[in-house]
Amino acid sequence: MPKLEFWFDFASTYSYLSAMRIERLGRDAGVDIAWRPFLLGPIFQAQGLPTSPFNVYPAKGRYMIRDMERICRSRGLSFKMPAVFPTNGLAAARIALVGEAEGWIAPFSMAVFEAGFARGEDIGDASNLSKILVSVCPEDQASNVRARSIEPANKDKLRLHSNRAVELGIFGAPSFLCADGELFWGDDRLEEALIWAQVL
Amino acid sequence: MPKLEFWFDFASTYSYLSAMRIERLGRDAGVDIAWRPFLLGPIFQAQGLPTSPFNVYPAKGRYMIRDMERICRSRGLSFKMPAVFPTNGLAAARIALVGEAEGWIAPFSMAVFEAGFARGEDIGDASNLSKILVSVCPEDQASNVRARSIEPANKDKLRLHSNRAVELGIFGAPSFLCADGELFWGDDRLEEALIWAQVL
Repeated sequence: MPKLEFWFDFASTYSYLSAMRIERLGRDAGVDIAWRPFLLGPIFQAQGLPTSPFNVYPAKGRYMIRDMERICRSRGLSFKMPAVFPTNGLAAARIALVGEAEGWIAPFSMAVFEAGFARGEDIGDASNLSKILVSVCPEDQASNVRARSIEPANKDKLRLHSNRAVELGIFGAPSFLCADGELFWGDDRLEEALIWAQVL
Repeated sequence: MPKLEFWFDFASTYSYLSAMRIERLGRDAGVDIAWRPFLLGPIFQAQGLPTSPFNVYPAKGRYMIRDMERICRSRGLSFKMPAVFPTNGLAAARIALVGEAEGWIAPFSMAVFEAGFARGEDIGDASNLSKILVSVCPEDQASNVRARSIEPANKDKLRLHSNRAVELGIFGAPSFLCADGELFWGDDRLEEALIWAQVL
């Protein structure tokens, strides 16, 4: 089955758009989706940006919010910006990697994006993350997922992911990577990326 | 007839994509296109960027070229980057404003974009611009268009255009402005902008 890697950051608004439709579109296209959480922060910092470009360039940030409002309305998605942007997606990304190994990364990640951008909640908050966790994995597992997510091996895994993103030429999120190395950036390119993955 | 303002910079690769299809799409949609040349350089400089973001952020620049190659191939357009990027679009933009008053801004601008990005020519070069000029306006007019383009009133007009772009919240090109102030950024949003203009 063809595969497409979905590189995303939990603090990224346009990643929310792709997260809410990529499993459905992948199923329809016969393409298996590999969810790849990573952190944009270090990439922006390496570019000399202290925070999200949407904060560094206010006109771009205002436009992004309006663009998100229009797209979410047309897709029947709720949209609410969190009070602080970008939110801290570190804890969520570490948990997602535990979910990758255990098979619940997709529903967990979708639930995190809905909390962050449909309801504008702080996804860096431990109690918010706990609520999301029990909704997607058995309760007896959820209790120790947080602990496992901050074990050194799992923290290293996220660091390696983020380093690999840079090696792949990724500079923003969402990004889509095909098996032959072809890279697509932005929710606008999701359909094209799926077609590319299909015909390989 | 509904109207859509097309804000573009002659040095902008994605503006080339829109320039080559906006007259046709506008005609099909019953929307009148107003061509609005402006300069991105001062906007980037106000953001603290010494040159195009595609040069400041090399990974983004490499991706843009690959993205342009894919899109141009799918649309049957030639694509060749100029040896120096970004090219100096100042002289072309001033001439385009003379063309705005005289009714040949669309064919002139399309010819400049084809020279710059289909053939990779230097559109800042005076002899290249002269060749383009005689292809779109009567030869006896072409001879003095260059002189009129650098008259103080015309130079001011371009400056006012660029200042107005900032006031409108424009931060990149191409941008599309509807009569109610709704702004769309990027060739990917051209279809949506035309629909917005139609239903106003």
